[in-house]
Amino acid sequence: MVSGLVRRAAIGAGVCVAVVSMAGVASADEGMWLMNQPPSEQLRSGYGFDATDDWLEHVQKSCTRIMTGGSGSVVSGEGLVLTNHHVAFDQLLKLSTGGRDILKDGFLAGNRGGELACPDLEVQILQTIEDVTAGVSASVEDGMSAAEAGKARRGAIAEIEKTALTADDVHAEVVTLFGGAKYHLYLYKKFTDVRLVFAPDSETASFGGDTDNFEYPRWCLDMTLFRLYENGKPAMTPHHLKWDLDGSSDGDLVFVAGHPGRTQRLYTVDHSRFLRDVMYPKMLRYIWRREIQLQTFAQRSDKHESMAAEDLARFANGRKAYTGYLAGLQDPAVMGAKQQYEAGLREFARSNTEWSSAWSDVAGAQTAFETFVDRWVIMSRFGFASSELWRKALTIVQMTEELGKPNSDRLSAYKDSRLDSVRLSLMSEAPIHPELEIDRVASTLGLLAETFGVEDPLVQTALDGMAPRERAAQLVLGCALADLAEREALVEGGVDAVHASTDPMIELARALDGELRRLDKLYKDQVQSVQQDAYSRIVAAKFAKEGDDTYPDATFTLRLSYGPVTGYTHPEDGTVEPFTTIGGMFERHETRGPGAPFTLYPEWNKNKNAVDMSTPFNFICTPDIIGGNSGSPVINRDGEVVGLIFDGNRHSLVWGTQFDDRVGRSVAVDVRGMAEAMRKVYGAGYLVDEMTR
Amino acid sequence: MVSGLVRRAAIGAGVCVAVVSMAGVASADEGMWLMNQPPSEQLRSGYGFDATDDWLEHVQKSCTRIMTGGSGSVVSGEGLVLTNHHVAFDQLLKLSTGGRDILKDGFLAGNRGGELACPDLEVQILQTIEDVTAGVSASVEDGMSAAEAGKARRGAIAEIEKTALTADDVHAEVVTLFGGAKYHLYLYKKFTDVRLVFAPDSETASFGGDTDNFEYPRWCLDMTLFRLYENGKPAMTPHHLKWDLDGSSDGDLVFVAGHPGRTQRLYTVDHSRFLRDVMYPKMLRYIWRREIQLQTFAQRSDKHESMAAEDLARFANGRKAYTGYLAGLQDPAVMGAKQQYEAGLREFARSNTEWSSAWSDVAGAQTAFETFVDRWVIMSRFGFASSELWRKALTIVQMTEELGKPNSDRLSAYKDSRLDSVRLSLMSEAPIHPELEIDRVASTLGLLAETFGVEDPLVQTALDGMAPRERAAQLVLGCALADLAEREALVEGGVDAVHASTDPMIELARALDGELRRLDKLYKDQVQSVQQDAYSRIVAAKFAKEGDDTYPDATFTLRLSYGPVTGYTHPEDGTVEPFTTIGGMFERHETRGPGAPFTLYPEWNKNKNAVDMSTPFNFICTPDIIGGNSGSPVINRDGEVVGLIFDGNRHSLVWGTQFDDRVGRSVAVDVRGMAEAMRKVYGAGYLVDEMTR
Repeated sequence: MVSGLVRRAAIGAGVCVAVVSMAGVASADEGMWLMNQPPSEQLRSGYGFDATDDWLEHVQKSCTRIMTGGSGSVVSGEGLVLTNHHVAFDQLLKLSTGGRDILKDGFLAGNRGGELACPDLEVQILQTIEDVTAGVSASVEDGMSAAEAGKARRGAIAEIEKTALTADDVHAEVVTLFGGAKYHLYLYKKFTDVRLVFAPDSETASFGGDTDNFEYPRWCLDMTLFRLYENGKPAMTPHHLKWDLDGSSDGDLVFVAGHPGRTQRLYTVDHSRFLRDVMYPKMLRYIWRREIQLQTFAQRSDKHESMAAEDLARFANGRKAYTGYLAGLQDPAVMGAKQQYEAGLREFARSNTEWSSAWSDVAGAQTAFETFVDRWVIMSRFGFASSELWRKALTIVQMTEELGKPNSDRLSAYKDSRLDSVRLSLMSEAPIHPELEIDRVASTLGLLAETFGVEDPLVQTALDGMAPRERAAQLVLGCALADLAEREALVEGGVDAVHASTDPMIELARALDGELRRLDKLYKDQVQSVQQDAYSRIVAAKFAKEGDDTYPDATFTLRLSYGPVTGYTHPEDGTVEPFTTIGGMFERHETRGPGAPFTLYPEWNKNKNAVDMSTPFNFICTPDIIGGNSGSPVINRDGEVVGLIFDGNRHSLVWGTQFDDRVGRSVAVDVRGMAEAMRKVYGAGYLVDEMTR
Repeated sequence: MVSGLVRRAAIGAGVCVAVVSMAGVASADEGMWLMNQPPSEQLRSGYGFDATDDWLEHVQKSCTRIMTGGSGSVVSGEGLVLTNHHVAFDQLLKLSTGGRDILKDGFLAGNRGGELACPDLEVQILQTIEDVTAGVSASVEDGMSAAEAGKARRGAIAEIEKTALTADDVHAEVVTLFGGAKYHLYLYKKFTDVRLVFAPDSETASFGGDTDNFEYPRWCLDMTLFRLYENGKPAMTPHHLKWDLDGSSDGDLVFVAGHPGRTQRLYTVDHSRFLRDVMYPKMLRYIWRREIQLQTFAQRSDKHESMAAEDLARFANGRKAYTGYLAGLQDPAVMGAKQQYEAGLREFARSNTEWSSAWSDVAGAQTAFETFVDRWVIMSRFGFASSELWRKALTIVQMTEELGKPNSDRLSAYKDSRLDSVRLSLMSEAPIHPELEIDRVASTLGLLAETFGVEDPLVQTALDGMAPRERAAQLVLGCALADLAEREALVEGGVDAVHASTDPMIELARALDGELRRLDKLYKDQVQSVQQDAYSRIVAAKFAKEGDDTYPDATFTLRLSYGPVTGYTHPEDGTVEPFTTIGGMFERHETRGPGAPFTLYPEWNKNKNAVDMSTPFNFICTPDIIGGNSGSPVINRDGEVVGLIFDGNRHSLVWGTQFDDRVGRSVAVDVRGMAEAMRKVYGAGYLVDEMTR
């Protein structure tokens, strides 16, 4: 149904502490570089390219972070934003109401007046970066435990973020880089009035579906266009990336600027083993389970199928991603390289006890984590989180409580710097489907029972003496929170109103909130704080040995990566050419169709004679990306768009652990394919004109 | 793809010790009764029916056990056997070679000469039952531990079975009944020359597919006809069940005679909790995982899809079944009834320490089991078992070793009474698909790594320094056992040849055999023997309290159940009528098709005008069945066939734990629907004539 690199693929991604890259086994064009520490020397010596400050600022201020977990770019002076169809998917679904089926039929506004306001989409553009390491570090006093130091740092970060909120449209975020060795304050301009301008039908957007996801060659028009609005008018966006309809050629240097979500390249061997033997198998078990349940749900009727489509796509995508991550870590060559690199660094660090003790501290935190990892993952990352009503109920219960505390003491989701985003999501008027909600809640209740046993006290609280399905129906059908007025009244009424509420979902959120807070604290104190401390010492050793001309692990913040457009050869895949053509989609439809996922949208056949079949459609290149990069522009030396990242091939799935461009590739939609389809098939030529003006 | 009640659905079913029913919460027509202890009084008083010895013998000798895990019945004097399409599925697949696609096109022999010999199908007919409890019990001496007593009983059983093997076509099996309170010797006549006579296309056989599986109303022609041969000629079968083309009516008493695989109705509360909180969730995790992997495999091409079809159907069916079992146990009403019944029985048993200690002995065995259950399930029941090459390699390694031991000391699979069946399967010439084999082996190697960690010694042995996929390719592509001559040579060469072999799959089987034997012994000594001993004491208390006019839990041996043809009413389902019609299939195709699983086989449309749309097609009734009953005849008072069991509705899935006929129903193909389809659509009227003669 959908493919790609959207960050939400990394269900439970919060497990991973942000750390620095494993430069010891770097390939030539490795790296997700910070905008304020770009690979200038590498670009100059390798490609004769001078990344000037102007070029960097132009790219930075043209790139967008899509807060549902993807990337994008501003592509006209009047706020047009290009991203993937699969990044836009949840908005397209929410906008498909009252007989309008955007997933099936696509959407074209036709003119400004026809642009559709998204119910709850936030888009951000990075304005400035400031190093605040000194300020954060100053909060830690001598003699503090790792947990105390962690709390002090989090408090300092909250204050720095709060102070930076100088206007309503500012988002401030202190980013932990290099495993805690550096802290940077990122200030964004944010947009919450975002409107849908153009989306193709789903069949064309995700042609090949789950079958072709993470494979190449591909033939997908995985694109959507939004427009940013300010004060009810299209935003003026002097910084934007023009489309270059000449596209790119085999061997051309290209850049990808986007928001990679999370990588684990510096993870110690023990930490990587934990991912390989504990965490990834666990995540896959949850995903396999939910995927089959969703398939069963979707089979009931066409209506159920469309309700379940987004969840199904998300889980299928996450499953493919985790399968690839796990296969990478199970490859003895990958783990062997990691072991060899680590041995060298530990040998170098041996005489410095502050450094040399760091590895066992990381391992100790993992051991502590294992004692509550199941509860933590299910309760806070996976379980109820898929239910909209549960999420709203929990937000109401927690937010009303947290607002009574000083900013620095609050749960991180409710700090001043995040409140606007939380409110946007909470007050969204996107439709809620009770059938799907019951299925989601029943699934979580079942997962609790299967994991901890029916008689576990937490499970007993959640089930309240009922079977999972029965309890789910009671919770969902008895819950009034689908009504916006009800949510507003509870938030308005504050803690007293929440405590007086007899809404079953609110009551459940109240009953489980204590356990959630306990797990959050356990994780922060025993895992996150300890590992941040330990990794910052490992990074210190690494910098001492190798210097600091490197990039940190991904943090869902803006990064620049680079490399050529190029094919590859592999024993199973044969020789793979870099470009596919529109004609290739017709051929694939002939040989693998006519059924899904190789169905051809009727408009393609109608306009077959007008379309130039030789138009480049998708292509591959080597820039270093990961989930979260979905929707990133592929940019040429002149700072123009030549493509749109939407996937990586299966060989790139190991990149979470280790970059390798021998056969790993990023996959993009070609700008020429987008333009041809928009002009000849979708009647959207006026938008191509706007983007090339 | 396929539905039903085939016994193999119960992947890992060997976990369960056979015990006796929970008569304390019995519904009116409950029971899978022994042929030598029929519910005579219940039938007389409830239905005015006299189950005479002649009637019982006639039914018994007309019923067949299909050794791939299902049931069937002889339906003509010349050896014609009726069973389900989904029971025949693996043979239909194996016979689909050289351009012949029986699953897609169906099959009709046309005449005796056209009947196709099955590669490895064994069919058995029960001849006699003898109570050998005294002989088995005599082997146990005072002062023996439970493990020693278990070993002694197994030895005595092996000798009794061996002594009973008076002819080549005899199969002898001592069945453990009432949890070890009784042992009966069953003697079967067995047939290994079985030929395919008629099978409809898969689309019609499993119309509605996984969507409708375990649901009702249904519209499936889930039937296949085989013929038993002896000495190269059709077997003469004086005992057979004629088809009654008048069928049955709403309210009619009907009987089901078949081979229910396994139920857990007397399980203690602790034991049931173990199933609910440990074993069923574990089985589901394995199934969800494999199902998704098989879907991915099947998506690669049409060829992959057909290779994976049987595995996919089996896992989908098993998943639906386990989902239902688990939901039943998670229902507080079901577990509450069990608790209440057990409290009464324990109160009754309190003064007798031999009885009263039994419950904690069962619980103790479960606790011991939990320490090795993962290894035991994965290694012996689930993991490698799906690979044909692995199974053949292990059989060769173990059989050559075991044949050097006295019969009573051998692993149970290699006792004299089982050897013919083992050889039939080992020397089968059914095709082996290397692509699917690699996927199966890689899946198991991955499961080992995910469950025990890559560095576990057993996993290291299995992986031999490679990634799972790479190792699987090496094992499968380097293995010569697909060649029958190679297998014969190794068996011929015995232990020496096996030890000298460098076939990688043989080497792996040699390397893992020790662990498999260790786990088998652990299970027998610490779980099975202890529980048999404990359950026989619980049964003694139960008989003392309630008398012994009851039936034992299912054991994949012939049982008789009974009840009316009748609909039901349920909040979610509404009022459900007992019969569907052929016209209903056309309607369902219109509303839910045209795509799979609601495709209509073209011959139906071609012959639409000839077919009587009002012909009854499927129906529901209340006889007590479970997985293994697939293919059982539904019989009227005159001992004639009126239907063919192929499924239960979802409300019947709790029957493994507790029978309940308020809304639980068995689902059958109506004899009239089969006859109409055979005559008007499939040109198989000559077979209808043979069955009604």
